[in-house]
Amino acid sequence: MRAGHSGTGWSIPMFSTCFVPVMKMRPIRKLRPLWVSRLLVQKRSGRLITNYRNTSMNQTGMVYIVGAGPGDPGLMTVRSLECLRQADVVIYDRLIPKTILDEAPAWADRIYAGKAPGKHYMSQDEINDLLVEGGQSGQTVVRLKGGDPCVFGRGSEEAEVCAQHGIPFEIVPGVTSAVAVPECAGIPLTHRGLSGSVAIITAHRADERQKVNWQACAAMDTLVVLMGVAHLPDVITELIKHGRSEKTPVAIISCGTWEEEQVIVGALHNIIDIAHEADIKSPAT
Amino acid sequence: MRAGHSGTGWSIPMFSTCFVPVMKMRPIRKLRPLWVSRLLVQKRSGRLITNYRNTSMNQTGMVYIVGAGPGDPGLMTVRSLECLRQADVVIYDRLIPKTILDEAPAWADRIYAGKAPGKHYMSQDEINDLLVEGGQSGQTVVRLKGGDPCVFGRGSEEAEVCAQHGIPFEIVPGVTSAVAVPECAGIPLTHRGLSGSVAIITAHRADERQKVNWQACAAMDTLVVLMGVAHLPDVITELIKHGRSEKTPVAIISCGTWEEEQVIVGALHNIIDIAHEADIKSPAT
Repeated sequence: MRAGHSGTGWSIPMFSTCFVPVMKMRPIRKLRPLWVSRLLVQKRSGRLITNYRNTSMNQTGMVYIVGAGPGDPGLMTVRSLECLRQADVVIYDRLIPKTILDEAPAWADRIYAGKAPGKHYMSQDEINDLLVEGGQSGQTVVRLKGGDPCVFGRGSEEAEVCAQHGIPFEIVPGVTSAVAVPECAGIPLTHRGLSGSVAIITAHRADERQKVNWQACAAMDTLVVLMGVAHLPDVITELIKHGRSEKTPVAIISCGTWEEEQVIVGALHNIIDIAHEADIKSPAT
Repeated sequence: MRAGHSGTGWSIPMFSTCFVPVMKMRPIRKLRPLWVSRLLVQKRSGRLITNYRNTSMNQTGMVYIVGAGPGDPGLMTVRSLECLRQADVVIYDRLIPKTILDEAPAWADRIYAGKAPGKHYMSQDEINDLLVEGGQSGQTVVRLKGGDPCVFGRGSEEAEVCAQHGIPFEIVPGVTSAVAVPECAGIPLTHRGLSGSVAIITAHRADERQKVNWQACAAMDTLVVLMGVAHLPDVITELIKHGRSEKTPVAIISCGTWEEEQVIVGALHNIIDIAHEADIKSPAT
């Protein structure tokens, strides 16, 4: 068996004795060295990990900023699978199903960057630091995002950080939820004679929502509002205020393409009541 | 060896003698019966085709309306590959690379529904007829489209036709070119502080172009114009007329994600000259 990392001085018996302390000592949101991840898995599974590559601490790694699609693992791309299967570290957002995470090697470090119950989001700065740390320590980092990484996914910001630190990166487009979630629910964004223009906005951040040009949005044939449920009354008020008929059909799709998918349909004037009755929750489009 | 189709009365020796006439007699844009496709391949390759399923003429088939992504085979989804690999018939648009078509079984009938030099497009009615014919004769038909099938891909119209004829269908979302082509060229559609709204339109059909609400389009942070090169002067005139600065950055991307990809950048006031110098051609976004 080869050593997990050359020059570390660790051997399997030594490592076995400090298994628990290492786990406890591990700083939260800090990457494990590669050899630790691999040996932890070996320890847990009792199997030799034979498919790892030799990675030197002095070698620059690679950051893949990857869109995983809306949730259904069938909507992952071939390239996203390729990236995941060679990951040393996966930093993943919420809305990534376990089936998708399972595609990474067993020994890969999986770090949740989304919201945990009772805790704050990991800040963007903290995520950026992890990308840089992983890249600079020679690891293959997969930054896994729901949908497409650059449709309100901040993928381009993370790419900028990598570029600033001289870390090679690749952005891997994904099936965007903005398109696929309505489509899988039977609502195509365009349809000859019915809809010839589409706009996509997010209602997720209150500060950005104020900047939305509602007049322009109301004039589009189809409007997709990502993460819109929490701001539903505001969105409806603005659209009606800017000339949209109260009878305009509206759909709200929660957990689109997941098993828990919930679709409700109505019109601008009654969708709030229908959503309330259906007890629809985020994430919804 | 099993018969390609039960109850046809054909045997291999009989079939061998009518190989050429069958090819010549085959009506253009008409599906081959399954057993013909399979035996043709067997005849060509000299190999037994062992991976086919038994399909009865009286059994209803299945139509998959599939997005193949923008061209790079790595941007196909897992589900689109699954569908292609079980196809009896593939009806494909232009902008589908051979590498992607190769994923269908060797014996699958591959029918080009796009523009051929000096010929008209296959009409939508002709395509619809093929879908119905395939579905009704018990075949697995994959209708393969570039990008996503429902972002100006008329996928929902084809789904309607299947529904009207009682043919089971599935729409398989793809990575839309509207998002991935700019992204792969280094132009994310959204970026915090720069762009918080995206609109997608097509300039492909002159009749639909007249219906575009240019005021709304000009007010969006990012505007994606699919198939826009032929109508570039009109698009620019309208955007400036509706208040967009002449200095607004513009990119034209031809053959995005393909090896022949060409990206030019400029501003509204000079992009026509730059595009002319670069001799940029359709398809471009």
